[in-house]
Amino acid sequence: MVAAGEVFDEVGYEAATISEILKRSGVTKGALYFHFSSKEELAQNVLGEQVSSFPEVPERDLVLQKSLDEALLMAHLLQREGGDAIVRGGVRLTVDQGAPADSLDRLSPMRGWVERNVQMLEKAKAAGELLAHVDLQAAARLLVGAFTGVQVMSNIMTGRVDMPERVVDLYRHLLPSIAVPGVLVQLDFRAERGAQVHAAAMELRRRGELAAAD
Amino acid sequence: MVAAGEVFDEVGYEAATISEILKRSGVTKGALYFHFSSKEELAQNVLGEQVSSFPEVPERDLVLQKSLDEALLMAHLLQREGGDAIVRGGVRLTVDQGAPADSLDRLSPMRGWVERNVQMLEKAKAAGELLAHVDLQAAARLLVGAFTGVQVMSNIMTGRVDMPERVVDLYRHLLPSIAVPGVLVQLDFRAERGAQVHAAAMELRRRGELAAAD
Repeated sequence: MVAAGEVFDEVGYEAATISEILKRSGVTKGALYFHFSSKEELAQNVLGEQVSSFPEVPERDLVLQKSLDEALLMAHLLQREGGDAIVRGGVRLTVDQGAPADSLDRLSPMRGWVERNVQMLEKAKAAGELLAHVDLQAAARLLVGAFTGVQVMSNIMTGRVDMPERVVDLYRHLLPSIAVPGVLVQLDFRAERGAQVHAAAMELRRRGELAAAD
Repeated sequence: MVAAGEVFDEVGYEAATISEILKRSGVTKGALYFHFSSKEELAQNVLGEQVSSFPEVPERDLVLQKSLDEALLMAHLLQREGGDAIVRGGVRLTVDQGAPADSLDRLSPMRGWVERNVQMLEKAKAAGELLAHVDLQAAARLLVGAFTGVQVMSNIMTGRVDMPERVVDLYRHLLPSIAVPGVLVQLDFRAERGAQVHAAAMELRRRGELAAAD
């Protein structure tokens, strides 16, 4: 999956070949086809991983801080250095328009991100963090859509080096129309949070794996 | 150029062929190569057109209304029905990550959009429409980046049918952190403006062409 993520990230779906993925992974053709019957199935799994395997981040006093932390973690995972090739590959497979003939399902990951954000906003609403009139569906769609574009633009302009700053800019500009002022002034908008959140999320995952192994 | 825009929009840069573009345009190979020496040069021209040929929209009392109108016009031009194939093709060429080996310049159109938005925000600031603390560069980058993502997401989720509504959502959520309240309440956020702005912009262009021909 990591090798597949790398290849899809570098050249896109059309130009990616099973043989290049095999070369990188060191896996035999038989072993790969035991798990995935085609390039399409492999790509669909990479596409799905971005949502289903998104690491849990630590709980915060404010739900919206956790939401911002998730966005900063995603920005971290999208970095070429120290990021996650499966996430990068999955995001490219989602954003590239592809051929009309390819039947990759790009809708499910988008819906998955929107649903995740709706749930987060519902919790924030229950905690009294949201302005009264916020349309949760519209706000969730907007957070996902705008993040997607910030990522595309940061990739074109700086190879994603400035992405944490751009994500912070996005939340600084969007949250005033979503969150109550008393919450806004408590949020930590430092772009450096991304690396800390990433480290904490990886530690949470390691502990979860240890607990599951017991 | 229209045929090239169509083909690049439908299949992307890698899969597009000069022969398919010739077939659609009805132009001879000799005529095409007289203007463009390669697929790359043709693509680079399509990429550039989205900014350089963006139609002038009518002046408004509020600079920010004009800014919103431009975004709604862009949403209109990106529609499959009644839109502009060159704009669609150029936007796909910008957003698709492409191969490391292709040397398409995706940075210039992005910079062009940011620069256009900076100039618009400078005018809005001079007209007293902006909050005092707005960072024009950051706000312009954000408007362009978020618009890009809203477009990608609308394309995946509805084939861009819901794009005017999503653009209005974006501006409704972003402008409160950019514009003074007295301006916000005067803005017309109806998504249907897109078609009217498009008709008015086409009329302006036609008059400009007639005047130039005199």
